[in-house]
Amino acid sequence: MAAAIDKPIRFGILGCADIARKVTRAIHLAPNAVLCAVGSRSIDKARRFIADNAPHISTEVKAYGSYEEVLDDAGIDAVYVPLPTSLHVRWAVAAAEKGKHLLLEKPTALCAADLDVILAACEAGGIQFMDSTMWVHHPRTAKMRELLCDPDRFGQLKSIHSVFTFCVDTDFLQNDIRVKPDLDALGVLGDEGCFLSNLTIDLTVIGTNGTLRLHDFIIPFEEGSAKFSLGTKSWFNDLVTGWSSLPSEHVVTTDLPQEACMVNEFSRLVGHVRDSGSAPEKKWPTITRKTQLVIDAVKASIDRDYEPVEIVV
Amino acid sequence: MAAAIDKPIRFGILGCADIARKVTRAIHLAPNAVLCAVGSRSIDKARRFIADNAPHISTEVKAYGSYEEVLDDAGIDAVYVPLPTSLHVRWAVAAAEKGKHLLLEKPTALCAADLDVILAACEAGGIQFMDSTMWVHHPRTAKMRELLCDPDRFGQLKSIHSVFTFCVDTDFLQNDIRVKPDLDALGVLGDEGCFLSNLTIDLTVIGTNGTLRLHDFIIPFEEGSAKFSLGTKSWFNDLVTGWSSLPSEHVVTTDLPQEACMVNEFSRLVGHVRDSGSAPEKKWPTITRKTQLVIDAVKASIDRDYEPVEIVV
Repeated sequence: MAAAIDKPIRFGILGCADIARKVTRAIHLAPNAVLCAVGSRSIDKARRFIADNAPHISTEVKAYGSYEEVLDDAGIDAVYVPLPTSLHVRWAVAAAEKGKHLLLEKPTALCAADLDVILAACEAGGIQFMDSTMWVHHPRTAKMRELLCDPDRFGQLKSIHSVFTFCVDTDFLQNDIRVKPDLDALGVLGDEGCFLSNLTIDLTVIGTNGTLRLHDFIIPFEEGSAKFSLGTKSWFNDLVTGWSSLPSEHVVTTDLPQEACMVNEFSRLVGHVRDSGSAPEKKWPTITRKTQLVIDAVKASIDRDYEPVEIVV
Repeated sequence: MAAAIDKPIRFGILGCADIARKVTRAIHLAPNAVLCAVGSRSIDKARRFIADNAPHISTEVKAYGSYEEVLDDAGIDAVYVPLPTSLHVRWAVAAAEKGKHLLLEKPTALCAADLDVILAACEAGGIQFMDSTMWVHHPRTAKMRELLCDPDRFGQLKSIHSVFTFCVDTDFLQNDIRVKPDLDALGVLGDEGCFLSNLTIDLTVIGTNGTLRLHDFIIPFEEGSAKFSLGTKSWFNDLVTGWSSLPSEHVVTTDLPQEACMVNEFSRLVGHVRDSGSAPEKKWPTITRKTQLVIDAVKASIDRDYEPVEIVV
């Protein structure tokens, strides 16, 4: 793990969603970030969250009984916003207007038009924006990208197939925010593909020369190391009774779990803006907007009885 | 391996297709089968096939310069027919009419109507029919079925995803029978799903409680043992930074490669008919017909611009 830096990025969290526990620990683990405040609509809830997450929160962290107080705290550089999607425009824009850099939980917006309001506020305020998609920050993903870009080992991309399902109980189907149209109106579309099957997270990418597979691409099976397999120029033996070469396993270790890698990268960029007056890095909001355009297109396709929908970037 | 039986099933082969080499070895390995004749349109080709496959063929095997001579040989119990699909009706019916039990290479027919002509001839002649789909005979498949039927470990079936692609060269795209409409008119539909990607053979079956995966379901990576994985009631750890349980690996060993298991099972059934006067086993032609109905439906869907097509069994 890298040594802690002198002036870590000071985080506030808006809301005590379940996933905030994970990001709280990630802020704790990232060497360039520190959690300074937690805001909730109820100060008791904020205090309980802090108490429940004690191993990952310093005793100096402040509890606020509103989101506004976090945004008004001059000691906060950046906010992590895990509120329900329908509240994102209001609070993300408010954060940007208060000069807080923004790590926004996914799905980031209900539609591209909403996202554009958020991104425009960030642009106007010189705010670093990043959505809270974690797996792309795992060093495994960089290794996968390297191999997928190898014309010899992978070749030309031919198909991508991914699955994300999990099985939920009655309580989830009645009470989770993802089944509440007024909270997370995108439902399964904004998160998992399906709620009714055993937990499965698969990604298979097939090219002319290679086949890359992993079965835990969003959440790695284990924190410290993650693997994927790559078959290259696969073929059968002479009698087609077996394969002449087997897919190779690639194991990528990491000192930080992927969500801490994310916080670390976000904080690094925020540090550039805060300490060096750099412009915010546009790579991340650009990726977020592409993701949103795909979600919008899938939604439009569903509304049009699964007709193909063209995506115009 | 089981001991060779006293009166093995005596096989003839119609045609010297590449895949006949594999089945020749399978007949050699199966304890209840023996190859007695190879017929080709050219006797030189039949002789060359016998010479080239010497390690798996007894010196007493006969070479015939026509398919008819194989069918007229009273010393032959059963024929394996690896001819191009467009020739199946003619030669499969001829074999049935000559009282030869029939192991027919896949795809078995161009359409269900053609297949029904073949199956009617088998029915009329008391002929045992089996298509030459090999992987279903691997003991791994039986183990998979057992787990897929387990309501606790797998639950209710929710989705099946399978892939079979391989990458071909220019010679294949110009000369293989699968690109010749007059030979194998079903093309990729009757065999692989796609010719333009790295060799990939995946099967993922997801149920309410379980996820079963294998990456070599048609041709196992290795002959002697094959594996698959099953995740059951998979879930994350408390902070969703990893999984609380990992998929388990199941390894199934086999004395006979799957194609020899197939010959063994076919020969066992033929033996019942030949030696005990039993009726042919209807399970296998029933499965073949279901497969054909699916192929017909996919073809109809393609012809109708990918509209859904209902399958009536």
